[in-house]
Amino acid sequence: MSASAAETFNAAAPDIVRCAYLELVVTDLAASRAFYVDVLGLHVTEEDDEVIYLRSFEEFIHHNLVLRKGPVAAAAAFAYRVRTPEDVDRAEAWYAERGCRTERRRDGFVKGIGDSVRVEDPLGFPYEFFYETEHVERLTQRYDLYNAGELVRLDHFNQVTPDVPKGRAYLEDLGFKVSEDIKDSDGVTYAAWMYRKQTVHDTALTGGDGPRLHHIAFSTHEKHNIIQICDKMGALRISDRIERGPGRHGVSNAFYLYILDPDGHRVEIYTQDYYTGDPDNPTVSWDVHDNQRRDWWGNPVVPSWYTEASLVLDLDGNPQPVVVREDKSEMAVTVGADGFSYTRQPSEFEEPGEEVGFKLGKQL
Amino acid sequence: MSASAAETFNAAAPDIVRCAYLELVVTDLAASRAFYVDVLGLHVTEEDDEVIYLRSFEEFIHHNLVLRKGPVAAAAAFAYRVRTPEDVDRAEAWYAERGCRTERRRDGFVKGIGDSVRVEDPLGFPYEFFYETEHVERLTQRYDLYNAGELVRLDHFNQVTPDVPKGRAYLEDLGFKVSEDIKDSDGVTYAAWMYRKQTVHDTALTGGDGPRLHHIAFSTHEKHNIIQICDKMGALRISDRIERGPGRHGVSNAFYLYILDPDGHRVEIYTQDYYTGDPDNPTVSWDVHDNQRRDWWGNPVVPSWYTEASLVLDLDGNPQPVVVREDKSEMAVTVGADGFSYTRQPSEFEEPGEEVGFKLGKQL
Amino acid sequence: MSASAAETFNAAAPDIVRCAYLELVVTDLAASRAFYVDVLGLHVTEEDDEVIYLRSFEEFIHHNLVLRKGPVAAAAAFAYRVRTPEDVDRAEAWYAERGCRTERRRDGFVKGIGDSVRVEDPLGFPYEFFYETEHVERLTQRYDLYNAGELVRLDHFNQVTPDVPKGRAYLEDLGFKVSEDIKDSDGVTYAAWMYRKQTVHDTALTGGDGPRLHHIAFSTHEKHNIIQICDKMGALRISDRIERGPGRHGVSNAFYLYILDPDGHRVEIYTQDYYTGDPDNPTVSWDVHDNQRRDWWGNPVVPSWYTEASLVLDLDGNPQPVVVREDKSEMAVTVGADGFSYTRQPSEFEEPGEEVGFKLGKQL
Amino acid sequence: MSASAAETFNAAAPDIVRCAYLELVVTDLAASRAFYVDVLGLHVTEEDDEVIYLRSFEEFIHHNLVLRKGPVAAAAAFAYRVRTPEDVDRAEAWYAERGCRTERRRDGFVKGIGDSVRVEDPLGFPYEFFYETEHVERLTQRYDLYNAGELVRLDHFNQVTPDVPKGRAYLEDLGFKVSEDIKDSDGVTYAAWMYRKQTVHDTALTGGDGPRLHHIAFSTHEKHNIIQICDKMGALRISDRIERGPGRHGVSNAFYLYILDPDGHRVEIYTQDYYTGDPDNPTVSWDVHDNQRRDWWGNPVVPSWYTEASLVLDLDGNPQPVVVREDKSEMAVTVGADGFSYTRQPSEFEEPGEEVGFKLGKQL
Repeated sequence: MSASAAETFNAAAPDIVRCAYLELVVTDLAASRAFYVDVLGLHVTEEDDEVIYLRSFEEFIHHNLVLRKGPVAAAAAFAYRVRTPEDVDRAEAWYAERGCRTERRRDGFVKGIGDSVRVEDPLGFPYEFFYETEHVERLTQRYDLYNAGELVRLDHFNQVTPDVPKGRAYLEDLGFKVSEDIKDSDGVTYAAWMYRKQTVHDTALTGGDGPRLHHIAFSTHEKHNIIQICDKMGALRISDRIERGPGRHGVSNAFYLYILDPDGHRVEIYTQDYYTGDPDNPTVSWDVHDNQRRDWWGNPVVPSWYTEASLVLDLDGNPQPVVVREDKSEMAVTVGADGFSYTRQPSEFEEPGEEVGFKLGKQL
Repeated sequence: MSASAAETFNAAAPDIVRCAYLELVVTDLAASRAFYVDVLGLHVTEEDDEVIYLRSFEEFIHHNLVLRKGPVAAAAAFAYRVRTPEDVDRAEAWYAERGCRTERRRDGFVKGIGDSVRVEDPLGFPYEFFYETEHVERLTQRYDLYNAGELVRLDHFNQVTPDVPKGRAYLEDLGFKVSEDIKDSDGVTYAAWMYRKQTVHDTALTGGDGPRLHHIAFSTHEKHNIIQICDKMGALRISDRIERGPGRHGVSNAFYLYILDPDGHRVEIYTQDYYTGDPDNPTVSWDVHDNQRRDWWGNPVVPSWYTEASLVLDLDGNPQPVVVREDKSEMAVTVGADGFSYTRQPSEFEEPGEEVGFKLGKQL
Repeated sequence: MSASAAETFNAAAPDIVRCAYLELVVTDLAASRAFYVDVLGLHVTEEDDEVIYLRSFEEFIHHNLVLRKGPVAAAAAFAYRVRTPEDVDRAEAWYAERGCRTERRRDGFVKGIGDSVRVEDPLGFPYEFFYETEHVERLTQRYDLYNAGELVRLDHFNQVTPDVPKGRAYLEDLGFKVSEDIKDSDGVTYAAWMYRKQTVHDTALTGGDGPRLHHIAFSTHEKHNIIQICDKMGALRISDRIERGPGRHGVSNAFYLYILDPDGHRVEIYTQDYYTGDPDNPTVSWDVHDNQRRDWWGNPVVPSWYTEASLVLDLDGNPQPVVVREDKSEMAVTVGADGFSYTRQPSEFEEPGEEVGFKLGKQL
Repeated sequence: MSASAAETFNAAAPDIVRCAYLELVVTDLAASRAFYVDVLGLHVTEEDDEVIYLRSFEEFIHHNLVLRKGPVAAAAAFAYRVRTPEDVDRAEAWYAERGCRTERRRDGFVKGIGDSVRVEDPLGFPYEFFYETEHVERLTQRYDLYNAGELVRLDHFNQVTPDVPKGRAYLEDLGFKVSEDIKDSDGVTYAAWMYRKQTVHDTALTGGDGPRLHHIAFSTHEKHNIIQICDKMGALRISDRIERGPGRHGVSNAFYLYILDPDGHRVEIYTQDYYTGDPDNPTVSWDVHDNQRRDWWGNPVVPSWYTEASLVLDLDGNPQPVVVREDKSEMAVTVGADGFSYTRQPSEFEEPGEEVGFKLGKQL
């Protein structure tokens, strides 16, 4: 992978610790506050009429999510924490060497974050790298504030990009490792999960028209916390904002839920993936035709989950143009009645010629 | 309701305690045993080459489910326990007075059950009433046998019948009370939930072609037990036997899952409905167009759930003929794009003329 | 049991549905409100400067707990709901025939309750019986109000009385059934659990100096809800108000926790006992020397749990005198190093003469 | 810390990934197998008459626990995985420079592990470092094998040593970081938690007579899994082998349980501590007199938990002599009625001179 890149470039990659926060542009700040604070229970670190800084229950850095009021709903920055102040320099040099536009701000782009660099990365995403941050109260044992659907950590980002192998090679150069992917027997890669911290991912690449933000994901402690979020959205009569789930992922093994904020930004609630910290952590490859890959129970993925995503901004704040994916689409090869998806390999349980279980076709 | 019946009949209704067991005819006893014992973990009270007697974890009567080998998959008996031996006499007289065929067996129709009467009820279902039963070990504190998806109680039956108001009146005469129902503004009743014990139901009537068995339901202690059943079915690569769910019911408020046994008999796994034991327990009526009625999170009901069901047998063991429902079908008025279903009433959140959230239409 | 009573009395017992509410006198209404509303999350139906009416999440009658400001902390009424208005008459007659003082109020003793009778029962407890009550919003699906430690139902009362067999006979005459008890081989009864609704108890009798209120118990849906209450009390730095648990009861099999309100009134949080609705539900008898009877995991009962309890009031509002128990005390025969308690019967695992596991002795 | 060491030594520390396995000597292999396999459900990778290799559900290396039959119950090795094969060389050199006895085996000391070095570390513990290991089936999605109390990961070791500051300095030199500790105002350190992977610890140091093994800890997914282990031990009538808990730790915030294997080796079951992967993860210091430090709910620590521990072996297989702790003991300053422990600071809730809540004194 990316052999030519390895030959060409000399700058050392920054030592990335983890995904740390997302900056989202929202068109109605009050509506977004109602969603993220009143419904989901994220904690406000600080806020004014233009921006709200939110964090999860067990976070000790200033924020995991910045909601900024703006004219076009979009993702303005995918921010990663690096290990040392010098890693910000390394990040700047690494992208500069690749011809990417970069912008350095010693005082940070947002409150609570110090010296940072933002870049327009080779895939067109606005990435940020920082070390300095304000520590705030970690609420871990503030059970007096713990709600029934409490979000305890930021877990990951998920990005839509047309060329997954290209994106994967770039992120591997940047120091990410691949925990899982979805492929087919023709060698097409449909998605890849990439990590720095010791979980299944800090970000994932989903094949599709991009660059776009697919979703941001927060963790809960247990599965019942996710069920409570569904129950609460039902009680508030906004169940139409539950897009997909809850379910158990095949990939990552996590219990999951996808919901939509007032601008249509997608949020995943996620719990109980697995430890990936060993150097030889095995990479799991899934067949795109395995209909338990995205939902271990075989429940179908809704089409909107494949097609809808959020715009991302360049460093001037303008939306990046969206490039169409040219490879096969996962939705086309699986949701349609193509006869290639399976619950189990035909030889295991079926008579020759017998239909294998494929739940989606039974639904509508 | 059923005013004419009240005038005409004199026999006292038996005092029914609860739904107690279902007798199912299965075509491949080994396959059914693998499903109910190995996958679901029901406990074998006794078994031979023709019949298996199964019970749930907290049961102290002989069984909750009888699997009997036979040529045609069907439900052979819906058995209710009555309060005293004399209530068996009362049941016999009550049905006889209504012109129903009855059969009394002092030694019971199946092992572990004594003096019983079976009837072909006014809706065509094979009902049984008994008091005498063999007590067996209640496994309540046998946590050494407790599996991660343990089924702890039989909760209810669900029956498909063409004319729900007629069935409801009959069961009310028999002493059942209605906890919830689904109606529309034209006065059509689509389903009703009827109880004797202090839960939402011992049986429910679902409008459709019948008489047929819609499903039998077992309870778990907690929601994670149900998720484990899904996870295990995924691990066994039989996720195509997960038909619907897991989800939260609107009606009953229970957390639920529907799965299919090797013959296609439907089993619900169910937990956490509510107490109905007060004499004035309020009846809840749902609008058939409320798309949170069957799933509180607005997830669509799969069509097979409306259309598929199991045959029931007459007292000679022959399948009862299925009569077509003439009233409107719930599936037709809700699954189709009729524009009448809603997540919330339009006036609450929407601008005039704006579409209200209706998730199903977004799916395929 | 109580053969003489059966011979002597003629009045029919009222048909009791369930324990319905407790009236508690508290000395600092604001402190009690902070405990029951802010910490435990009970829902206020109405309140003024003197009285607060509280209900659990799934309740539809006016209240389950009345907090009334008064000079002496005590229980003023143990109120049961009966099946019909006429059962209030029956209750009045039943107690009158036994020479008990009764007081009838057609408009109820507290808000939200209609025609009621209060009695000073044969054990000295203030019992109330009512049918009429105001229906209020059942919050069952108001998950927007659901807190992480939500109390969903009133489960039972627990009363301290010196002579358990006498109390048991009286309550059996009144229509209660016994689900479980604790005895020894000398025929001493230490405690008994009595039910009307289909759970392990509506009230229990605990042997000790009485009449006193041992505790009132509320249910949660799942075990994690109880753990959250502990965690929250830790966060509020009131863990010294956690008296005992959490644990798994031997008797009842419920997962439990005992906490103390600002006046020292004891509250149990309780979940997942079992169904008792069948007419021949087996009664379980525990040996007082079985050290898993009160905690299935063998964790010791703290002495205060045996010795402390709340006064109860007579119908004039004066505390009933406390009569000392003359039978052996459960604490004395089990907590002390008497060598008679056991984890398992010696013959099962041990060599002859070997000590069987008894955890308490290892602790201090 | 350890300034002199930093001056004196030159060898680079190995890059330790995580605690990986413990080798335990047990005196009755069948009894130990019954405990770890039948009761706790660990998975056998391989076994013979002398040794059993066990792993947790989500493990992909050969084992997390080796049970080896021997004459004296003891811990034979605390094994850590390192990042590269060269880190084994580094470990060997690092300890050799410190004058510690080392032994290198290219084929490993146990099955499934390749090139390894074992050392007698400065505290007297037998530590092992390895990179090479056989990969085995990761059971993560084998929910058909998932039991109700499933242990999913090895979490940490806990070691008893007389001089905690000395041990802490040594482990910090070796590359560990401190997440939490327990101190008093006199500067005595009672315990410290040290991590390499991104959790609260890979090992902890508990002040006491040592070197001894305090416990090995496995994780579950959720809290109910731990409760099930208690329930199962109750069902098996071995509740006397439940030593302490379940409870919520103050330190680490994890939900915990301590149980004892047939030789008295202590096992902790543990879930839901927090992420520590950021470079500036805050260290939490607890006051030894805070009675929520070891149990967030204020439940007392049983004395045996402070005093009992397992011997450790030298590289010849002989027990290391136990050295008595000279600093103050945590048990002495907290369990006794010394009046210095508190639930909350007196000024918060109490009147001057009033007693603060201290639960232990109320117990016996």
